[in-house]
Amino acid sequence: MKIKVVVPVSTNKWNEIIREQYEECKDPETVIDIINIEKGPESITSIYDDAWAELFTIREAERAEEEGYDGVILYCGMDPALEATKQALSIPVVGISEPSLHLAYQLGKKLAVVGPGGPKVDTDKNYATFGDKGRYGLPAPISRRYGVTIERPVLDIFDKMDEIKKGMLEAAKKAIQEDGADIIYAGCGALIEPVQYLQENLDVPVIANSAVALKTLEMIIKLGLCQSKIAFPKPPKKKRLM
Amino acid sequence: MKIKVVVPVSTNKWNEIIREQYEECKDPETVIDIINIEKGPESITSIYDDAWAELFTIREAERAEEEGYDGVILYCGMDPALEATKQALSIPVVGISEPSLHLAYQLGKKLAVVGPGGPKVDTDKNYATFGDKGRYGLPAPISRRYGVTIERPVLDIFDKMDEIKKGMLEAAKKAIQEDGADIIYAGCGALIEPVQYLQENLDVPVIANSAVALKTLEMIIKLGLCQSKIAFPKPPKKKRLM
Amino acid sequence: MKIKVVVPVSTNKWNEIIREQYEECKDPETVIDIINIEKGPESITSIYDDAWAELFTIREAERAEEEGYDGVILYCGMDPALEATKQALSIPVVGISEPSLHLAYQLGKKLAVVGPGGPKVDTDKNYATFGDKGRYGLPAPISRRYGVTIERPVLDIFDKMDEIKKGMLEAAKKAIQEDGADIIYAGCGALIEPVQYLQENLDVPVIANSAVALKTLEMIIKLGLCQSKIAFPKPPKKKRLM
Amino acid sequence: MKIKVVVPVSTNKWNEIIREQYEECKDPETVIDIINIEKGPESITSIYDDAWAELFTIREAERAEEEGYDGVILYCGMDPALEATKQALSIPVVGISEPSLHLAYQLGKKLAVVGPGGPKVDTDKNYATFGDKGRYGLPAPISRRYGVTIERPVLDIFDKMDEIKKGMLEAAKKAIQEDGADIIYAGCGALIEPVQYLQENLDVPVIANSAVALKTLEMIIKLGLCQSKIAFPKPPKKKRLM
Amino acid sequence: MKIKVVVPVSTNKWNEIIREQYEECKDPETVIDIINIEKGPESITSIYDDAWAELFTIREAERAEEEGYDGVILYCGMDPALEATKQALSIPVVGISEPSLHLAYQLGKKLAVVGPGGPKVDTDKNYATFGDKGRYGLPAPISRRYGVTIERPVLDIFDKMDEIKKGMLEAAKKAIQEDGADIIYAGCGALIEPVQYLQENLDVPVIANSAVALKTLEMIIKLGLCQSKIAFPKPPKKKRLM
Amino acid sequence: MKIKVVVPVSTNKWNEIIREQYEECKDPETVIDIINIEKGPESITSIYDDAWAELFTIREAERAEEEGYDGVILYCGMDPALEATKQALSIPVVGISEPSLHLAYQLGKKLAVVGPGGPKVDTDKNYATFGDKGRYGLPAPISRRYGVTIERPVLDIFDKMDEIKKGMLEAAKKAIQEDGADIIYAGCGALIEPVQYLQENLDVPVIANSAVALKTLEMIIKLGLCQSKIAFPKPPKKKRLM
Repeated sequence: MKIKVVVPVSTNKWNEIIREQYEECKDPETVIDIINIEKGPESITSIYDDAWAELFTIREAERAEEEGYDGVILYCGMDPALEATKQALSIPVVGISEPSLHLAYQLGKKLAVVGPGGPKVDTDKNYATFGDKGRYGLPAPISRRYGVTIERPVLDIFDKMDEIKKGMLEAAKKAIQEDGADIIYAGCGALIEPVQYLQENLDVPVIANSAVALKTLEMIIKLGLCQSKIAFPKPPKKKRLM
Repeated sequence: MKIKVVVPVSTNKWNEIIREQYEECKDPETVIDIINIEKGPESITSIYDDAWAELFTIREAERAEEEGYDGVILYCGMDPALEATKQALSIPVVGISEPSLHLAYQLGKKLAVVGPGGPKVDTDKNYATFGDKGRYGLPAPISRRYGVTIERPVLDIFDKMDEIKKGMLEAAKKAIQEDGADIIYAGCGALIEPVQYLQENLDVPVIANSAVALKTLEMIIKLGLCQSKIAFPKPPKKKRLM
Repeated sequence: MKIKVVVPVSTNKWNEIIREQYEECKDPETVIDIINIEKGPESITSIYDDAWAELFTIREAERAEEEGYDGVILYCGMDPALEATKQALSIPVVGISEPSLHLAYQLGKKLAVVGPGGPKVDTDKNYATFGDKGRYGLPAPISRRYGVTIERPVLDIFDKMDEIKKGMLEAAKKAIQEDGADIIYAGCGALIEPVQYLQENLDVPVIANSAVALKTLEMIIKLGLCQSKIAFPKPPKKKRLM
Repeated sequence: MKIKVVVPVSTNKWNEIIREQYEECKDPETVIDIINIEKGPESITSIYDDAWAELFTIREAERAEEEGYDGVILYCGMDPALEATKQALSIPVVGISEPSLHLAYQLGKKLAVVGPGGPKVDTDKNYATFGDKGRYGLPAPISRRYGVTIERPVLDIFDKMDEIKKGMLEAAKKAIQEDGADIIYAGCGALIEPVQYLQENLDVPVIANSAVALKTLEMIIKLGLCQSKIAFPKPPKKKRLM
Repeated sequence: MKIKVVVPVSTNKWNEIIREQYEECKDPETVIDIINIEKGPESITSIYDDAWAELFTIREAERAEEEGYDGVILYCGMDPALEATKQALSIPVVGISEPSLHLAYQLGKKLAVVGPGGPKVDTDKNYATFGDKGRYGLPAPISRRYGVTIERPVLDIFDKMDEIKKGMLEAAKKAIQEDGADIIYAGCGALIEPVQYLQENLDVPVIANSAVALKTLEMIIKLGLCQSKIAFPKPPKKKRLM
Repeated sequence: MKIKVVVPVSTNKWNEIIREQYEECKDPETVIDIINIEKGPESITSIYDDAWAELFTIREAERAEEEGYDGVILYCGMDPALEATKQALSIPVVGISEPSLHLAYQLGKKLAVVGPGGPKVDTDKNYATFGDKGRYGLPAPISRRYGVTIERPVLDIFDKMDEIKKGMLEAAKKAIQEDGADIIYAGCGALIEPVQYLQENLDVPVIANSAVALKTLEMIIKLGLCQSKIAFPKPPKKKRLM
């Protein structure tokens, strides 16, 4: 089983920690390749960055199918271009938030989203803007807490790891005590270490989206499933300039 | 990894086909035991049967935890006593519908439920009665089609296998063409063979709930997760007579 | 008009206060019998207890129909096995929460649920878990306040009556002033005395679920109505062991 | 117990049949007076008529409180000015649709509204226009069927009684068989005779809104309840010209 | 283009400030006439006043169509009798809240309603009572803040202008900082001056409902549109007394 | 007032008909420039094309702000990159669907979307996938009818104009008669001529999205409004490669 992980930012800064995490939790026979997009933003912290990254992400995913991979992971918490990629590909493709949110609602009822942020960070595209159904048909989170405000979220994560871990733990505790949350989700794919820290220090389930994405994709491939091509029809050929 | 499968009916009629299915798709190191409840209905085809089976199901699940299992599958499409069992147990427990419905909405958007039925069959407890959110917070199915009416659904499944397979295929095709369904779910755990038949004869994903339940439970156990004990608090000891 | 009240716990501790309340508000010609279940939990304070009590509750309700009663009240705020019993019976059956919540929303718009509780009490099965439609298709309560935490809710009610009454009044006042509630509902059937205390000390309607259940059942019987047997089809005979 | 019934049309055409119906189902001690509004439309078959009747309806209800009545019924299926009257009065006031719809959803799950109509009849103000929550917070009806188109609905009811009864029965049967309805509601207060005809000829519950309104108001008065004056605050005095 | 503005209160107190506002923002060729209703309440601050004003409002709007106007504005934040008037007229009619709320949700996501009020003011008819869809199918406001409590809201507006302006600014700031609002709406048509004050002192959009109503009506007329006469069918002639 | 129209496809095929339409309905003082994107798809008929066009669309909109325009129209029915562009810009930006859908729900209640399509056309991104709230918080359309299936929707529009006009009229009539629609919306910006044909041949309002987008943007600019920069925060500078 050959899986390609597309990290949709123009830096390979996170590839190594993703690889480590995946070596640990993958099935023995799974082979994993991790790549970046060459163009696009160096991090995705707004719906603007997300839109900027989409075209380059789609193209890498299309290449993965041509190269014979069995499945693709779009490795960013905003699941950029997920629906468009599901249309383009005839092999299974998952984001990291979609499978994690679905698993979270099997383990709890009131989800809190926790992660570093700031007034100009807008990464909540997957959750409901209006009403209580978001992008994936799931209930809206019970709360959203940042824990720590850093100037360049995601990018500065390694420099401020300690501050982020403590801030997120504080935020998660408040979400549980004040908001009534019973499950914690860290919406971003770069928070592997803080998520482990939370798992060790909290009594409620904390979802590691990177691992859940991989295990879900392995399940889909093993069961011979794929996204429905009626729900996600392959776009016909036409002139598209790049 | 030791998993106990509780089939919540007072007959072992289906245990063998479940075992075969699970031998095929389980992880190499997984050990699976399959048991029935000694009391309760011989099949579950209404919310009445479901209520009847709940107490006996809970007790078997509690026994599994005492015996040292790592996880429990409640093997019935109505997921009887699932929330109560999640409360009682400190090891992971899954139904077969909850994980399947969550996976289905990752692969498609418009779910059709297909399976043998009749005017007195009422197995739709998991779907929304009012509004568009059912028991699991998921969108309501786009349609419900029976395909074939049999006198004693589930019980007569082996005698009428051919009729059921053809009826379900017919129903699924109508769901796709007339209702716009893009993913098919057979709500009952006894339909292993018809589900395979549908998978071979349809272009849309058909969810095999038995397999999805097992693979999801394996994922939960491997990732060290469990249902949230805030969401599902352990009931305090008190006098309960049986 | 003969009505059977099934108190679905294995103690007759509350029968007397229920009888007093019912003698006061019943129609002159109504005859009321109050019984318990012989097995099951001694109180219902979680979805686990609720599942445990269901089978015994159904059986008593079925017996009531055989004995010639005109209607059945399932006397517990969680309305255990209500849908299953509506299926099984061809005479009207009501819980105590369903009619009370429907009346409450005719008298106000923002409902607060008030009653003694604690971290392991989980009696909110009737209200919406996801979205804003609960078990009965009604809006979600505007708030949930406990007022007082007691070790063994319901069981210790007589010992701590004073504490409970004052705690609930305090909670109801906060619900009105801080949450904007305009109607108060005490979700449990054992709170007859505290409810009267609240009614005397508050300006908003306080719903007495025991009385509302009886008056609604009398209305249903007088008007010759019953639960729809299309909505709640009688389960066919089959082998069910107990 | 003295109840005033305000029939909010400028004709006394229906008073007699209402009186007959009420004599039959009222409690022995209940005294009922039935009056009309002197101005306003002769029938209410659109939201335009409804708005036209509101001021006159409110004034009659206010007079009822001054005259010492214990409760008021606004006798029209559109429940005209119900919220405004609940504000104005400190005695209980009910419409005929609100209590009927609440009772209906206790007896079934899928409500069909049946009654004579036509392309310019617009009496659906109580049901959801957008989404699935109507004026009373209840689920939207599963279907709406007219059965018979008459030129002047309501007004011509006595001349075409037979046609209406048969048309409504036909419509109700289709609602059950084709739409899956399990409970029937005739949205108009003038359909007393057709409702009885349907009750005799159908196996599902058919709600008689006139009777349900009376029995619900009697229950509210007996239990010492009233609409919440926080939800429906009394409007302060000011200059209002008529 | 001739537009009639119906101010549905029995005082001409506000006509002058409306005229000034409209002279400033109307298209050059638009001719505007402003009138009051002769009967009805002197101000609308509850659903009771709203019901009281409806009949007189409808009649003035009908007169406008007879007089040859091209469109009608019902100038009150509660949009009294809007649906009934849309039925009665074959020329376009707008309220001042409906177009403003629709524009607001094009500019922001989380709407706060701000305006002077008090415990007996009940002007929230346009917003969702139950669930998250109000009268116009739009999301519910994120918050409602009064800022200042005045004895006779609307009527005392000129005497307490300074207090109101400051109170509303304070309320709007709290809505933004504490409730997360990103757009401000002052629900009442008499707040022209406070709205300008807010616009000058806040960084988020503040909707001036008077101006938006006029510009939207001009757009509708210019594009040759009108309310759908299927959605709002003309009520047939019948005897209606006044 | 200077407005830039960005047609987000890599062909200028439609610029001329857009210009004609806009000359006709713009305010006298409005100056309009119409441009294309240089890269990207030649038409947008799927969420895949939409994602492909987003980056190029954003860049052109950013250029418009630098060039001193007062507002931007993203001229495609899928409103590609609308939220991202609202973030990037400090001048008002509108799509053509968002303002049209908001106006539609002011004129009717049940919207039908009509336009040429085919099995691989997936342009429904603005409407609700799950539940009844779409991208803009508005109710879901009552129906979706294609009328005519053409091989290359949008691209072949000029060659098959007659077929398309007739097919869409047929579809709209069916939507009104069979689905109960009371307002018609043609979801695509290239259907200017068919929309006029429908307006001439139908009695219900038919929304011309191109004109509504322009008139709404003019209103926003005249009233000094803009998208809320709290709702759509400007993304901070960072390295983004193209």
